[in-house]
This record gives sequence, C-alpha cells and structure tokens, in this order.
Amino acid sequence: MSVIKAAIVGGTGYTGVELLRLLSGHPQVEVTAITSRAEAGTPVAELFPSLRGHYDLKFTAPDVQQLAQCDVVFFATPHGVAQAQVPELVARGVRVIDLSADFRLQDIPAWEQWYGQQHACPELAAEAVYGLPEVNRAQIAGAQLIACPGCYPTAIQLGFIPLLEAGLIEPSGLIANAASGASGAGRQGKTDLLFAENNDSFRAYAASGHRHLPEIEQGLARAFGSEVELTFVPHLLPMVRGIHATLYATLKTTADAAGSQEALQQLFEQRYAAEPFVDVMPAGSHPQTRSVRGTNMCRIAVLRPQGRDKVVVLSVIDNLAKGASAQAVQNMNIMFGLNENQGLESPALLP
Amino acid sequence: MSVIKAAIVGGTGYTGVELLRLLSGHPQVEVTAITSRAEAGTPVAELFPSLRGHYDLKFTAPDVQQLAQCDVVFFATPHGVAQAQVPELVARGVRVIDLSADFRLQDIPAWEQWYGQQHACPELAAEAVYGLPEVNRAQIAGAQLIACPGCYPTAIQLGFIPLLEAGLIEPSGLIANAASGASGAGRQGKTDLLFAENNDSFRAYAASGHRHLPEIEQGLARAFGSEVELTFVPHLLPMVRGIHATLYATLKTTADAAGSQEALQQLFEQRYAAEPFVDVMPAGSHPQTRSVRGTNMCRIAVLRPQGRDKVVVLSVIDNLAKGASAQAVQNMNIMFGLNENQGLESPALLP
Amino acid sequence: MSVIKAAIVGGTGYTGVELLRLLSGHPQVEVTAITSRAEAGTPVAELFPSLRGHYDLKFTAPDVQQLAQCDVVFFATPHGVAQAQVPELVARGVRVIDLSADFRLQDIPAWEQWYGQQHACPELAAEAVYGLPEVNRAQIAGAQLIACPGCYPTAIQLGFIPLLEAGLIEPSGLIANAASGASGAGRQGKTDLLFAENNDSFRAYAASGHRHLPEIEQGLARAFGSEVELTFVPHLLPMVRGIHATLYATLKTTADAAGSQEALQQLFEQRYAAEPFVDVMPAGSHPQTRSVRGTNMCRIAVLRPQGRDKVVVLSVIDNLAKGASAQAVQNMNIMFGLNENQGLESPALLP
Amino acid sequence: MSVIKAAIVGGTGYTGVELLRLLSGHPQVEVTAITSRAEAGTPVAELFPSLRGHYDLKFTAPDVQQLAQCDVVFFATPHGVAQAQVPELVARGVRVIDLSADFRLQDIPAWEQWYGQQHACPELAAEAVYGLPEVNRAQIAGAQLIACPGCYPTAIQLGFIPLLEAGLIEPSGLIANAASGASGAGRQGKTDLLFAENNDSFRAYAASGHRHLPEIEQGLARAFGSEVELTFVPHLLPMVRGIHATLYATLKTTADAAGSQEALQQLFEQRYAAEPFVDVMPAGSHPQTRSVRGTNMCRIAVLRPQGRDKVVVLSVIDNLAKGASAQAVQNMNIMFGLNENQGLESPALLP
Repeated sequence: MSVIKAAIVGGTGYTGVELLRLLSGHPQVEVTAITSRAEAGTPVAELFPSLRGHYDLKFTAPDVQQLAQCDVVFFATPHGVAQAQVPELVARGVRVIDLSADFRLQDIPAWEQWYGQQHACPELAAEAVYGLPEVNRAQIAGAQLIACPGCYPTAIQLGFIPLLEAGLIEPSGLIANAASGASGAGRQGKTDLLFAENNDSFRAYAASGHRHLPEIEQGLARAFGSEVELTFVPHLLPMVRGIHATLYATLKTTADAAGSQEALQQLFEQRYAAEPFVDVMPAGSHPQTRSVRGTNMCRIAVLRPQGRDKVVVLSVIDNLAKGASAQAVQNMNIMFGLNENQGLESPALLP
Repeated sequence: MSVIKAAIVGGTGYTGVELLRLLSGHPQVEVTAITSRAEAGTPVAELFPSLRGHYDLKFTAPDVQQLAQCDVVFFATPHGVAQAQVPELVARGVRVIDLSADFRLQDIPAWEQWYGQQHACPELAAEAVYGLPEVNRAQIAGAQLIACPGCYPTAIQLGFIPLLEAGLIEPSGLIANAASGASGAGRQGKTDLLFAENNDSFRAYAASGHRHLPEIEQGLARAFGSEVELTFVPHLLPMVRGIHATLYATLKTTADAAGSQEALQQLFEQRYAAEPFVDVMPAGSHPQTRSVRGTNMCRIAVLRPQGRDKVVVLSVIDNLAKGASAQAVQNMNIMFGLNENQGLESPALLP
Repeated sequence: MSVIKAAIVGGTGYTGVELLRLLSGHPQVEVTAITSRAEAGTPVAELFPSLRGHYDLKFTAPDVQQLAQCDVVFFATPHGVAQAQVPELVARGVRVIDLSADFRLQDIPAWEQWYGQQHACPELAAEAVYGLPEVNRAQIAGAQLIACPGCYPTAIQLGFIPLLEAGLIEPSGLIANAASGASGAGRQGKTDLLFAENNDSFRAYAASGHRHLPEIEQGLARAFGSEVELTFVPHLLPMVRGIHATLYATLKTTADAAGSQEALQQLFEQRYAAEPFVDVMPAGSHPQTRSVRGTNMCRIAVLRPQGRDKVVVLSVIDNLAKGASAQAVQNMNIMFGLNENQGLESPALLP
Repeated sequence: MSVIKAAIVGGTGYTGVELLRLLSGHPQVEVTAITSRAEAGTPVAELFPSLRGHYDLKFTAPDVQQLAQCDVVFFATPHGVAQAQVPELVARGVRVIDLSADFRLQDIPAWEQWYGQQHACPELAAEAVYGLPEVNRAQIAGAQLIACPGCYPTAIQLGFIPLLEAGLIEPSGLIANAASGASGAGRQGKTDLLFAENNDSFRAYAASGHRHLPEIEQGLARAFGSEVELTFVPHLLPMVRGIHATLYATLKTTADAAGSQEALQQLFEQRYAAEPFVDVMPAGSHPQTRSVRGTNMCRIAVLRPQGRDKVVVLSVIDNLAKGASAQAVQNMNIMFGLNENQGLESPALLP
C-alpha cells in the first residue's frame, strides 16, 4: 500500500508534538510538512528534543499549495484558524482532520456566542463529520472533513452514551465533574499555567460555563434522541496528561432491574464490546488516568452507590491522545481504510 | 493566664506533626507529652526534622497517669483507639479532642457497620460534641469530649449548610465530588500510596461507599432538619495537602428569586459573616487549595451555572488543618475560652 | 516600641507575597505600601487570595514621597530597578533592603558584564552591606542599605564557609551542584516555566555560567581570604520551593585529623553554634528541602565519603525564605535592633 | 524468523511492567511466562491495568522446568535471587539477562561487602558479560549471561567514557552528582517513598556510599585502563522516571586544545556516532529527563564552563528504560542477532 502523505498545520503545541510522536510509529504515514509562522525554519527536533532522530523536518510557513499535495491535513491550531484555511483544501480534494473547535458545533449561533467571533464557513460545519468513532464510524469512513472531538467531550460522552441510548436515566440533571492535566491548557506562556502556580494545588475553572458544554450537550442529545441538560464543572489537576470525568445521573424510576449494578455493567460491556479503544473495567474498579497515558484508550467503570437512584460513571482518557491527537489518527485510519489501531497499539507508560 | 498543658496520643502521623507545628506557635499551650508505642524514646525532632529546635520532647509509650495530668488530650490515632482510652480520661476530668472517627456518629450501629468493629463506649459517643464550630460553637464551649470532624465532612458540610438551612435545595440528590491530597491517606507504607504510583495520575476511590458518608449525611440532616441523601465520590490528587469539594444540588422549584446568583452569594456571605475561618469568595471565584495551605480557613464560592436549576458550591480546606489539626486547635480555643484564632493566624503558604 | 513602617516595591512576584506573608505575623511591623505599576489599584488580596483577611492594602504606583515616609523599604524588583530608585531614598534617610542583585557585587565591571547593562550607582554598591547575617551581622546592624543575598549564594556560602575559614580545603576546584524549585524563576509567563513543561522532568540550566557565580565567588573569597574558583551548575526541580546544594571540595593534604568525619562535624557545629537559622544536622543526615519550607532555616550536613579526599556538604534552604524574603526580614530585625527571629519562628510546613 | 520465547522472573515491580510494555511491541518476542510467588494466579492486567488488552498472562510461581523452555529469561528480581536460580538455567542452555546487581561486579569480595551477603556463584559472575552495548557489543552478541547495568551506572559511565578513553581527565577526583525519579526505589510500600513524603521536596540519600559506586568505578576503570576514584552522591527527585547525572572532572594540564569546548563536543560526537541510543546534543544544550521518557536513549551534553579546568557532562536516561528494561531488550536484540532497535523505536512521551 502506498504511503499516506500527511501535513500538520500549527504544530508547535502539545497536540502537534503528540501527532508527530504517534505518526512516527505509523507504518503507512509520512509527515511531509508541519507549519508554524512563528517557528518557520526551526527544526522540529530543536523545539521538541524528544523527536531528535525521528524527524528531519523543519517548521514552515503555511502554504496552501504545499498542503494541497498531501492526502490528509491535520489542523492543530487555535479555534478560528481552520475555518479560514480548510475550505480551499477541501475544495481541492484534501481530507482534513481538524483538532480545533471550528467544526464541532452544528448550531452556528451557539458557536459564535461561545467563541466570541463570527464563523467563517457555516456550510462546511454542516458537512463536517464529528469524529467520535464509537458513534460515527460509518460517516467517518466517508468523510472529507472531520471535526475531532474535544478532550472533555470525549471522556464525558463515552461515559454517558450507554445510559442515554438505553433510556435509563433522566435527561436533565446530568452532572459531569471533570478534571484535566495542565497540558489541556496548551503550550502558552500564561502566568496562571506556571509550574509554581499549580503544583500541589487544585482548583475548578470556568465553572459557570466552559466552551465544551454545548459540544457535549449536542453529543448527548444525539445519543438520547432529544435535548439533555448537563452541569459541567472542569478542574485543573497538578499533573501533565489525563482527563478524569466523574459522571452522575439519576436513574429513571422505571429503570428497575435494568438499573442494577450487574445490569449496568453488562450494558456498558455490550455497548463497547466491539470498540478497540473503550475498555469497560470490572465492577468496582477505579480507573487511573495513568493507565491510559499516551494511548487512545478510554477506560470506564460504572457503579450505583448504596443502591440509591444515582448512577456514577468514571471515565478516563489521555487528553492529548484519545482527547486529541490519537483520536485524530484513529479517524485517519478509518478514513483511509486502514486497520483502526494502526500506530495506536502501544500500552500506556506506567509508572 | 496560666498555660494549658496538652498531650497528643498517637503523634507519629500527619495530624500529629501538624498539631505540633500549630501548637509550637500557640502562646498559651505547652505540649507536655506525645505518645507512640512504636517510636517510644525517639525524639520528635528526629522523626520530623522540621521541628528541630522547636521541641525537645521524645515520644513516650501511652500512660494514663501522665495523660490525666494534662488539661487537654488530643487523639491523633486510627479509629478504635480513642474509644478504648478516652473513658478513663473523661472520668478524671480531662478534656479530650478526638481527631479520629470514634465519636463522630450518633448512630452506633451505623458506626459499627462502616468501621467493621463493635463500638467500645456508645454512651460517650452520645455525650460527645461534634466539633464543627460553625454549627456547634456553644456546645463546644461547654464540652468535655469533642469529636473533631473528618476532612471531607468539614469541606462538604460548610458548603451545603447555608443552602440546607435556608431550605433552598432538594434534600435528596445531593452530590459531593471531592478530591484530597495524599496526606489524607496517612503516613503508612502502602504500595498504592507511593510517589511512583500517584504522581502525574488521578483516580477516584471508595466510590461505592466511603466511611465519611454517614458522618456527612448526619451533619447535613441536622442542618436541614430531616434526612438528606448524598452521593459522595472521593478522589486522590497528586498533591500533598488540600481538599476540594465540588457540590451540586437542585434548587427547589419554589426557590425563585432566593435562588438567583446574587441571592445565593448574599445567603452565603450572611451565614458566615461572623465566622473567622470561613471565607465566602466573590462571585465568579474559583478557590484554590493552596490558598488555604497550612491554615484553618475554608474558602467557598457559590454559583448557578447557566441560570439552570443546579447550584454549585466550591469549597476548599487543608485536610490536615481545618480538616483535622487546626480545627482541633480551634475547638480547644473555644473550650478554654481563648481567642478563637489564637495560634491559627498565619496566612497560607503561597506559592 | 513603636511600629516600623515598611513598604515593598515591586510586590507582585513571589518574593513580594512571601514578604507580606511573613510580615503579617511580625508584631512590630506594619506594611503601609506595596507598589506595582501593572497592578496599581488592585487589592493585594485579589492577586493573592491566600492573603484575604490579612491585608486591606492595594497596589499603588511607586511614589518616592510615599516611600520616603517609611522606616524601611524592601525592593522585590528585577535587577536594574533598585539602583535607579534607591539613591533618593537613601539620601532621605530611609533604610533599604534590596532583594535584587543590584548591590551584591563589589566588582562593578563584573556586574555590568553579567547583567548586560551599565550600573546606575556604583558608589552605593560600595556602601551597601551584603546581608548574610552569619558573616556580616555587625555591619548589618549599622547599615542603611542592605544587598540581600541571592538564593543559591546563601545555600552555597553557608555550606562552604566553615571549610574555607578553617583553611581545610583547596580553594580551587570547588563544585556547587545546586537545584532549585520553580518559584526561583519568578512569576513570569514564560513557556519553559509552564507546569506541563516541568512536571515529572528535571534539567540543568545556565550550566556554562549563571549570574549568581560571581556573587558566590565573592563571598567565598572573603571567607577564604583570597580568590577561590568554583564550578556552579544549577538545576530546575519539579517542585515549587526549596534549594538543595550539594557541595564538593578537596581536602588539603595537610588537613589530616582536622578533615576526619568527626572533626568536620565539630567544625560545622562550632561555626554555627550561635546562629539561630543554621542547623547543623547529625552526621549521616540528608536534609530535605521540605524540612525548611516557609522558614528562614538553613539545614546542613557534612560528610567525607569513603574517607577519601573529598568533603561533601549538603545544604538546604527555602529559596523564597532564607533565600530571599525571610532573610530580608532577618536583616530588618538586626538593623532595627529587634529580636533576630521576630516573625520568623514558625516551623516548616511538613508534610 | 521464529519467535523468541521470553520469560520474566519477578515481574511485579517496575522493571517487570516496563519489560512487558516494551516487549508487547516487539515483533519477534512472545512473553510466555512471568513469575511472582506473591501474585501467583493474578492476571498481569489486574495488577497493571495499563496492560489490559495486551496480555492474557497470569503470574505463576517460578518453575525451572517452564523457564528452561524459554529462549531467554529476564530476571527483574531483588539482588540475591538471580544468583540462586540462574546456574541451572545457564546449564540448560537458556540465555539469561539479569537486571539485578547479582553479576555486575567482578570483584566478589566487594560485592559481598556492599550487598551484605555471600555470593552464591562467583564462577558465573566471572563469565557474565556486562551489558553496556556501547562498550561490550561484541561480547554481548556471544554471551549466555548478561549482567544488565544499573541505572546510575549507565548514565554516569556513558558520560565519562569518552573523556577517560581519550585520557583527557584526571582519573581521581571524578564527581557524579546524580538524581533519580522515585520509580528507581522500586514498588515497595516504604514510608519514606510515600507520595506525601516526597512531593515538593528533594534530598540526597546514601551520600556516604551507594551500592552502585563499585559498579561505576569498575566500568570507568575499564575505560581508563587503570583505577579511577569517584565521589558519587545520588538524590531523590519528586518525579517518577528519569535519571540526570551531572558529572565533573578536571582536565589534565596536558589536555590543551583537546580540552576546548569544540574539541570536547567533537570527541563525544565521534565516540557515539555509531550508537543508536546515545544522542550527543548540540553544544550549550541542557538535556531534560522527559526527552528520554520511556525510551532507550541517553542524551548527553558536554561543556567547559568559563574555560576553566573543569569539564562538565550532563547525561540523562530513563531509569526504567535505558537504565533497566529497555537496555535489557537492547541486549536481547544483540544476543539474538536482531535489529538492535527492534521494539525500542518509539519517541519519548513529551509532554
């Protein structure tokens, strides 16, 4: 099989270097370009010494001509960038996997409100396929433009979906208490992201409204078949990688036996039986974020404490992997008809 | 004023060393004994070099005669120890502040079920005063035996109490998503508490039932006036000190204006206006655990995301301080008629 | 005794907040002003929530008139600032304690070379007293301008001084391998100081030449009586506070019995017997940085591994405390004839 | 090529799980057995959830018959175990790679002194090949028993070897200041390895003599051609993986031009030009431990500060990888005539 030529736009952040790490071990992909205006001319291995010996590439200024010669272009850019550059690439037949938020919301006014700017190409947003393979595998296979899910949305949707699809829980009153490693905030020199500001401390942030909320509610509504209402409070962990979502929902009073601990366990196991990257852990487990570090896995446990009416789901991913770059590679594998776990097979780094 | 003679039983753990730290700066207390069977004969400053120059004490084997000569005895022991030793001290007129779980629950069968052993003196449990000054200040002043609240229970009760006392929220469906630094698990050589097992990772634990649950529900029921139902999921943070509780409750449909963001803010500010150790932060704040490190403060923020029917409370304490040893000192100050913040005035260590 | 009015210039960094923390507990000092151009008008407690309830102060733009009414002004500014503002204050009789590097070097050309700018008032540098009380106590008592030592220089000088004063070691070939917590790099939003860049990683920096080198050599030369030659390699630790210096020197062949483990231990104990803030630990100890966290202590161990010709000294301080703000308070206490450990008596926060 | 059958003896520690992680991606190796007396019967994936989906193996009690059917047996055991079990395996023609200290020292009395027990088979120690490929590649290829180097010894030897082989430095007065992540202390429930004891703190340990000292001196002496004298002080870092060695040596006065920064850089580059796992970084670099996390790489920088007579080498490895399990796999690849970097090609996990 011929090699897939890939480019990365905006490669100086953490999702960029994670894509490079993962693709370096992908037998059917060659990264032919990586762009950055600010670092144009700098060897990738100079900015990221972990890649010394793995890449000879230098960052280049973005150039549509060059990008258009690739089979697939990953956008690892802040929101607003992809929507400006993607249309031409799509028009020229290039497949695009956008890791940013630009094409995730179908509700354009909502996007414009949460991101505080006008959307540059609503028509492409309508065409874009939401790249959560556990839900959209078939559409991903035929897509030209993938909106890769956010990190919180991935962990939270995978945890709630079995319950919503089965109609076991009340659709309002959903709660997602989630915590992320600091890499989720990106590689930007902000005071409040300093080591000395965050080590040995913990806090919530954006508790009154985080941009991932509408994306999550959109996905949960699809699973449920109508609107849901979620309270979502994100927190910043003194660690680098990993998202832990603790989800709470109220079992419908009609749930009965279907809501027993055993039935819930079975429900989750069946829903994800065929999924290579969702691991339903044995009842009573408490998944650790390190157990998925560097991998595309989502590990999930479901429980019903005290036999009361609340069901609790624990869901962990690596925010840079299943929450971003590895999921992007999974999408690429599906789009190009490759083995879905190509390049994604390494176990987590533990300890 | 004469000096208060204090002893610490079981002083080799983290609550022990924290008591010593705090009492070293208390102008009216002298620590005259600290016990440990295992470390009898070892100078305190050898086990805890941070105390070099502050204490000449050695650990001694516990001796009731010696303890009975003190004005106050702190128990910093695992559960089960205090209930065996306290009765004699109480009988001899010594005041006791128990930092363990032995006297926290009024429901003795519940205690016996959660702690897996028979309770040795239920009659004292009935007499013990629950040492949460924000609720029980008057009883504490006259108490001979204080059951010092647990760390999670302190952070969670202080967050829910204003809402429950005001009758603004539904008493069932309460959720407490809480996370603790590793010092909360104590100074015991267990594999799963190793640095290499916990750094750069995060996980829930005891999600199907933690021993602090009945204590919290007992306290919340007192505030509400009848039973409440709480789902409580604790998590282990890759940090040393601090508890962060993120609390969720459903506003009663009758709450109306009383449930507005402004009214909630005012409710909390009024409830704690006279409290020296509860700080209601401005609306929109996200309290960090480091902002209370080493102190007896509880910092709280309350919010109503999206104006929906959920109220969210963020509550942080230092698990070893307001969650244990500093709160014990606060109780002592109240019991002995001292200025309540004597020895507890230092600001948090930040960064 | 009347209260000492103190001001802090440039108080938004870590040495500023540490000064505020320490001075809040100092019974004889009142902080009457704290300046910051960028944060003028912001309450101190808004920038540093740990200080809520402790200070009502707001940051103000620097104003010489206001500063001149204080008894003492602390400069917690980047280098270059103090030398511009101090002359007028000194002329008006205000005592100044400069925590920056501006007045530490007597060799002005060396200062200008290492800091890359012209020195604004060499004449004051000549008058300034180097604020290491263990060496200069008498001069500090009479000083009007104190050059407070750097963090690395404090830890390293205190470790080498007994050996140099006793003439036991070769003056060339000295090695200082030191490591600092990230707060040492200040509160600036630089990419390479991010949490995600530093957690679970360790590296040297400025190995070919760090600005503290000439300051350290100047101090060691004073102790020895003539020039010394030091190799100094600093490292950045994945922690917030603390400096650990591991010092190596070659015993003179004439050292003989004076170089035995026992004699070295005795030498250090005698040298620092009267020092309230230097703790010579028992032979065989390995001081931990946390044992001095938040305090003005320097803990030291000396050893002679394998009985070979190298002596090794382990020296730990808190870079923000004995390495900056607490040492500044110690200097102030000496200058104003107060008890030297006033405001500096709290034990370290451990764990 | 046929698959190599491998067994791991003592697989419940960190080197065990790291071997499993690396071998899961090795195309020519199948792990057929992993032993543990304590965990016999436990699925590997239960103890290490990171391996769920990668291994169906259970731990078994050690059984020489079973081990003897493997092509290669890795010993990931505490010292003392391999020397008891290896002789029979060797006698039966199995190749053995011992990650413990049992066969590293040629000087048996020294081994017995440092490890406090009698050596069970000195004759095999004499036959064992020290598995540092950068020095012993040819002998490794033909070896039946490999003594895999310790973690500190690997980082330190690779840093000093070019200088010693070239005869540029004084052989006495060598200094190795090294620091390790906590995983280097193993997965044992000791109080002083707890998270709460080590986070945000740093300390030296075993400063008066660490067991790796004779191993390092033995290796350096081989490189130099006669005895060397090293002062080695290890430190414990508040991080999980990684060793950073900062090495100091005195240039011979005859070194002259050969000791210039440029010549030193060239010396190192030439020495390691053909080595797949030693990366000499550009002059002025400061290698970070995270840049080798999870990999078999050693990254090195060499410098000559201030042009004085000291040469400084910075050398980083992952203590569990190049310092243990990955180096073991590298040895296996060489022994079995495989591509040397088979299974060892993934870049480091960064951030």
